[in-house]
Amino acid sequence: MVDVKLLGFSFSPFAHRVIWALKFKGITYEYIEEDSKNKSQLLLQSNPVYKKVPVLIHGGKAIAESSVILEYIEETWPENPLLPKDNHERALARFWIKFGEDSIVSTLFLRPTEDEQERARAMKKAQETLTIMEEEGLGHKKFFGGNNIGMVDIVYGCLGHWLEGWEEIVGMKTIEASKFPGLHAWIQNFKQVPVIKENLPDYGKLLLHLERRRQEFII
Amino acid sequence: MVDVKLLGFSFSPFAHRVIWALKFKGITYEYIEEDSKNKSQLLLQSNPVYKKVPVLIHGGKAIAESSVILEYIEETWPENPLLPKDNHERALARFWIKFGEDSIVSTLFLRPTEDEQERARAMKKAQETLTIMEEEGLGHKKFFGGNNIGMVDIVYGCLGHWLEGWEEIVGMKTIEASKFPGLHAWIQNFKQVPVIKENLPDYGKLLLHLERRRQEFII
Repeated sequence: MVDVKLLGFSFSPFAHRVIWALKFKGITYEYIEEDSKNKSQLLLQSNPVYKKVPVLIHGGKAIAESSVILEYIEETWPENPLLPKDNHERALARFWIKFGEDSIVSTLFLRPTEDEQERARAMKKAQETLTIMEEEGLGHKKFFGGNNIGMVDIVYGCLGHWLEGWEEIVGMKTIEASKFPGLHAWIQNFKQVPVIKENLPDYGKLLLHLERRRQEFII
Repeated sequence: MVDVKLLGFSFSPFAHRVIWALKFKGITYEYIEEDSKNKSQLLLQSNPVYKKVPVLIHGGKAIAESSVILEYIEETWPENPLLPKDNHERALARFWIKFGEDSIVSTLFLRPTEDEQERARAMKKAQETLTIMEEEGLGHKKFFGGNNIGMVDIVYGCLGHWLEGWEEIVGMKTIEASKFPGLHAWIQNFKQVPVIKENLPDYGKLLLHLERRRQEFII
């Protein structure tokens, strides 16, 4: 009997973090698709604070918030580790996870605006964030954790596909190969890892979903 | 020889999280006071991303971000645990730590404003956050972790003293005993724990510091 359930949404980058982690660990789970316009009782009961996916339910006990779920998965199924063994290196990984949590959505997914000044300000902030990620976080490594993909890469996973799609929709490009060669290469490397490649939403359908989100932003 | 250094600032609630955790663990450390107007080379080198306290330096290796430092302290010195042993309970603790990180400063420390509507909106948001903390987080427990103080309580520590001081300065009161009896009692319980009581900034000096911060906000 499967005692691991994941409440997710096909186009949620946060739900995908959990999907990828479970796949890396080789955990069998039941996936339950949620409808954001008509949330299930299970979701509302399992995550009363945010009422959002992803929620992991293991042995009947629920956990919300993707970064919290990732730590739980790592502790519960230590095989194929996603965090370094060394305490200091693990702290550095958590620093970059927190940096990603605090900055990716708020600074990189630019809100469409007609205001030139606001647009320039947002673009400048995005470039500053990307410079920190590239120079301080990624450095000259293949993945944030080194040669192997890890939890930081999973958290930054939405820079590929979701950010690419969003930038196509809003017509603004931040991660250009000439400006951020490291991050640009990282996105390609990340998407070529089999577990990631096999568990990405269909790009065309994702674009359609993001287009609807854009319309909600500007209405 | 002491190989643990803490770069802090007397009135920083984030630096105090680390001080409290180190004291609970009984770790001897060298405290280095930083001047926010004239930051040391050590601080700039140790936390190049944020250039902020607290920074813990252990065996010459630096870690920034208070919540990351707390996890490091817990892993490095497991005595007097600050997180529950059970994986699911630990996930719940991390959920509330993240909730605190995402909401305490942004919604509870109300910015002074003359705009009545903005004031009412901010107060409503603060009350919603406090309701979640009281009903979903604290429940009927003495501390967030149960009978004993833990990492969640340490992260929420600025609700006592700092928030009390800030509310005195800006003339707005959110955690009233009649509305939030649980949180109100929690603040008193928290401040009576010897390690906390002995390691709080002087309230009068803190008020003066917060008054200066208020002036910077409204200038």
